[in-house]
Amino acid sequence: MKPARSSTPDRVGERALIEEIRARAGAPPAWLPAGIGDDAAVAEPERGALEILTTDAVVEGVHFDRRFSTLRDVGWKALAVNLSDVAAMGGTPRLALLSLGLPEAIAASEVHELLDGFFALAAEARVTLAGGNVTRSPGQLFVDVTVTGFARRRHVLARGGARAGDALYVTGAVGAAAAGLSWLRTAANQGDDPAMADCLRRYRAPEPRVRLGALLGRNRAASACMDLSDGLADAVRQVAAASGAGAVIDGGALPVPAAARDWFRRTGLDPVTAAAAGGDDYELLFAVPRRARGRLATVIRQSRGVPITRIGEVTADPALVLVNDGRREPLPDGFVHF
Amino acid sequence: MKPARSSTPDRVGERALIEEIRARAGAPPAWLPAGIGDDAAVAEPERGALEILTTDAVVEGVHFDRRFSTLRDVGWKALAVNLSDVAAMGGTPRLALLSLGLPEAIAASEVHELLDGFFALAAEARVTLAGGNVTRSPGQLFVDVTVTGFARRRHVLARGGARAGDALYVTGAVGAAAAGLSWLRTAANQGDDPAMADCLRRYRAPEPRVRLGALLGRNRAASACMDLSDGLADAVRQVAAASGAGAVIDGGALPVPAAARDWFRRTGLDPVTAAAAGGDDYELLFAVPRRARGRLATVIRQSRGVPITRIGEVTADPALVLVNDGRREPLPDGFVHF
Repeated sequence: MKPARSSTPDRVGERALIEEIRARAGAPPAWLPAGIGDDAAVAEPERGALEILTTDAVVEGVHFDRRFSTLRDVGWKALAVNLSDVAAMGGTPRLALLSLGLPEAIAASEVHELLDGFFALAAEARVTLAGGNVTRSPGQLFVDVTVTGFARRRHVLARGGARAGDALYVTGAVGAAAAGLSWLRTAANQGDDPAMADCLRRYRAPEPRVRLGALLGRNRAASACMDLSDGLADAVRQVAAASGAGAVIDGGALPVPAAARDWFRRTGLDPVTAAAAGGDDYELLFAVPRRARGRLATVIRQSRGVPITRIGEVTADPALVLVNDGRREPLPDGFVHF
Repeated sequence: MKPARSSTPDRVGERALIEEIRARAGAPPAWLPAGIGDDAAVAEPERGALEILTTDAVVEGVHFDRRFSTLRDVGWKALAVNLSDVAAMGGTPRLALLSLGLPEAIAASEVHELLDGFFALAAEARVTLAGGNVTRSPGQLFVDVTVTGFARRRHVLARGGARAGDALYVTGAVGAAAAGLSWLRTAANQGDDPAMADCLRRYRAPEPRVRLGALLGRNRAASACMDLSDGLADAVRQVAAASGAGAVIDGGALPVPAAARDWFRRTGLDPVTAAAAGGDDYELLFAVPRRARGRLATVIRQSRGVPITRIGEVTADPALVLVNDGRREPLPDGFVHF
């Protein structure tokens, strides 16, 4: 019997929990001479590649609400947001460090659910948990994850490489997560609704574009890339600013799912503006120079059904324009987490 | 004027704060092609070395109390605990990622103090801040830091390499941090006391043994090493368990500062037992085989005044024994954070 299974994590429970996490992390691969269980992890760097490093926390009451997301969703999403960052750099993720801040009232079964979600995505993305730490949190639950990955130098995708004339593309769907969250926040909608299922899934447990990011990098199909964690409008703004350019987005081309459009309309919002402003879509925005279109076609052939949609163009004019129903509007402001 | 300077961090403040952190992090070194400001950092691995990775959080109300520590101390310590882990592996730290969870009530000036402490130690340890994230925390302040470093394969110090007959050594002082914290927790002692100044400093802003850990690794002077974050007794227990051995600790040899001894006596505690059980000393415990004594002498000559004290021996008998005033006692249990 492990203390953490039946009681609030305490000193003994913390150790037992670490042992359990270590067991779930599995045998370390050959490139990981020391994983969980020493003062620090020890890894062999990937030969001939640069290392990509990112860290991001999800915090209860800021990034998730336990009425809307299961602990499994939380564990999944804490890793997903970091994998999305590595993908946006054109990298392949490799290892993760997991830092858990557990409130006193959390049940051991909830911690296990959280780990279920984390390890489910880690397995899917072939990421090894190499270390971390567990602490009590007197306030809310927080899950802070660090992910490292790798890419060859000429395959790294920065934000600032876009040039006027490059076409802008986005993976997957835009606005679905924001519609899902908005639906959940409407007091009457705390159950499930088949029409909203896809939007809810995208909000609760997004699929980071791990494979596609690496493909874009390896094929040198993009001049710039960024993920949509803070929304499409924000990503367009950041890529344009870093590239010293502007952009025109064709609102009619945005891949906004029908359920999201319907929900935005029911709440009195313009679907295109709401989708562009909404956050939490862990999709990729990327720019493709004319000369790289053939390479993009190669990526699309290997994309295993992930939609890739052309949504606009990088411009020399620094303005950020959304063409919506024939009108040219300023691109809306980005997503506000809090 | 930056919003974060005069107001609670909000969305705009978060961005301004990140810009400020980026400016304070300085120009990235040549091995860091992308630092703060993209989806993730990009680093060239250190040639011919293994990478060492660790993450550790300090949480308000668990690891620090704002009545006892300044925000500068908190920023310093959040980095220190991670540097200590890298040192305990025989590594040289290189870069850090900083994840901040800021409560609504924190003042911008307090965030700056925290950064002052973080960057002061980063400069001292020659560690580059390569990335991170800033989020609101509805509960307590938390500071989660990831540090990576490097060491050649044969220089890595694990916990499990000690063998019977190896001598056990400790750097610096033992029990000082625990005495400092115990003194602070006594209601009457919330100011400063010259006699306790050294213990208080060691509790609030410990000096991780960055240089010494790397020296022990590079000179192959130790068969095992661990830091004392959870106290000496805990470290002895962990090293012994990982090495399949036991240990005898000579209580009379422990480098417990006079002020700590006095304070423990005044609170009715045996100074040796209290010092061995107390936590928060970011010192190193290490084992030295007989054949490596000459190499240890080399390390000591380069130690720039950091005391290195022989405190016992690894034994084939798995018992963990503290010899205290001529009596053989079981080694006390480790430090309990909460």
